[in-house]
Amino acid sequence: MEIVKLRSRNLKSETEAPLGRRNIHLTIAFDGTAYHGWQIQRNAPSIQGIVSAALTRVTGEPVSLTGSGRTDAGTHARGLVANFFTGSKVPADRLPPALNGMLPRDIRILAARDVPADFHARKSARSKIYRYQIYRGTVLPPCLLREYFHFPYPFDFNRMEAAARLFPGEHDFAGYAKTGLDVSGTIRRIFRYDIRQRGERIYMTVEGNGFLRHMVRIMTGTLLEVGQGRISLSDFAAIFEKRDRTRAGFTAPAHGLILVRVRY
Amino acid sequence: MEIVKLRSRNLKSETEAPLGRRNIHLTIAFDGTAYHGWQIQRNAPSIQGIVSAALTRVTGEPVSLTGSGRTDAGTHARGLVANFFTGSKVPADRLPPALNGMLPRDIRILAARDVPADFHARKSARSKIYRYQIYRGTVLPPCLLREYFHFPYPFDFNRMEAAARLFPGEHDFAGYAKTGLDVSGTIRRIFRYDIRQRGERIYMTVEGNGFLRHMVRIMTGTLLEVGQGRISLSDFAAIFEKRDRTRAGFTAPAHGLILVRVRY
Repeated sequence: MEIVKLRSRNLKSETEAPLGRRNIHLTIAFDGTAYHGWQIQRNAPSIQGIVSAALTRVTGEPVSLTGSGRTDAGTHARGLVANFFTGSKVPADRLPPALNGMLPRDIRILAARDVPADFHARKSARSKIYRYQIYRGTVLPPCLLREYFHFPYPFDFNRMEAAARLFPGEHDFAGYAKTGLDVSGTIRRIFRYDIRQRGERIYMTVEGNGFLRHMVRIMTGTLLEVGQGRISLSDFAAIFEKRDRTRAGFTAPAHGLILVRVRY
Repeated sequence: MEIVKLRSRNLKSETEAPLGRRNIHLTIAFDGTAYHGWQIQRNAPSIQGIVSAALTRVTGEPVSLTGSGRTDAGTHARGLVANFFTGSKVPADRLPPALNGMLPRDIRILAARDVPADFHARKSARSKIYRYQIYRGTVLPPCLLREYFHFPYPFDFNRMEAAARLFPGEHDFAGYAKTGLDVSGTIRRIFRYDIRQRGERIYMTVEGNGFLRHMVRIMTGTLLEVGQGRISLSDFAAIFEKRDRTRAGFTAPAHGLILVRVRY
């Protein structure tokens, strides 16, 4: 029984399928308000760190937890997926109650199950679905405080809708990535981008095969600037080609963003 | 300009219509998690205390704020109504932004308007609408943590529905009031009681001409015990007549309760 651990420069733990050990798939939901995102960081509470510590207590052995991807500090999840290898014999359906009994109530293990050894929460993912939530009314109701971005400024929803129709397909999203990143490998495929209005609430749902850092938040901010007339539809269409972050819109805040689901 | 102030034994301030002063109607929403309910209390943060302090700053004079009624510590509101008299000339539509700029973000003034001098937030109310929110799934999603009571135990929804049909009408709710209260004046009229299931979520909406202390929460707990078979339908029906708190169910926790609206 040998575990091969690789540490990427991002500290993301990646564990290859070890012989004779179980591979466990976890579905995790969290309110990200109190956390510095998914990934373990020094001196800052992270979801990965807190869940790993609980898993180590439950399984009695150090656990290296692989997530479907990083999430920004303050971002939420309804169904992040993670996997880990273990020699523990604890039945998978006993894991959620055991872990939830230790975890803070704003982090919940929704489900756990055994999966084949070659399942990898990040590499096996076919797509991820994110939702961005906006409230455009004058006063933000307190019940929406944690998960809605308050944007009470006038904008033209139809223009945003028209622009959003250009997102689906395979594009170079270099212009939609946090600057300072390595800009190689910035091609991503968007399977769908829905934008809907319900009263004063706006929901932007995007499914893609992968997302660059801050990409969903910049897509949101860019659509809002298109809606405000600060970015024209033709300038919007040119962002893919120009690959220039300064042509896209602002980065919408993290707390309006929810990782809804990861598909495999 | 004379202001007549009466202090009830509950410290509720009641201000009669004073000559030459404006009467202002406020609609207030709050997340009650951090507060000890509406009413001003010594050494505990209350909505009434915090909004009164902000009003005093905005109007430049001491303000006595009358609420539509008390709310329990931890209970939320989407549309509590309050009124106050003022000599200030600040236009009503300037009050929400001025107040919201000072208030914590979990308390919001949704609207303000001038009303006739005889309007009284509590005495003029014709009915109040409360909603109680339950989540019956095994694991409570973090996004429901603040406003849903987690009740993952088996119960028969149809039995609860059948019992709930007995609530509308005029009844003696002495059995549904916090014990230790004066049990005179316990007749209330319930205009409607809806109980609905949406997936794992249950919503109980009640409209009545008034509610005794803890009454909505005890109605919820009693229905849940009927659903569990701990209280029979005939024992349930007898609670009005017996006027005995011990025959009703438990007091469901405050955080699942929302004051939705006050009608005038």
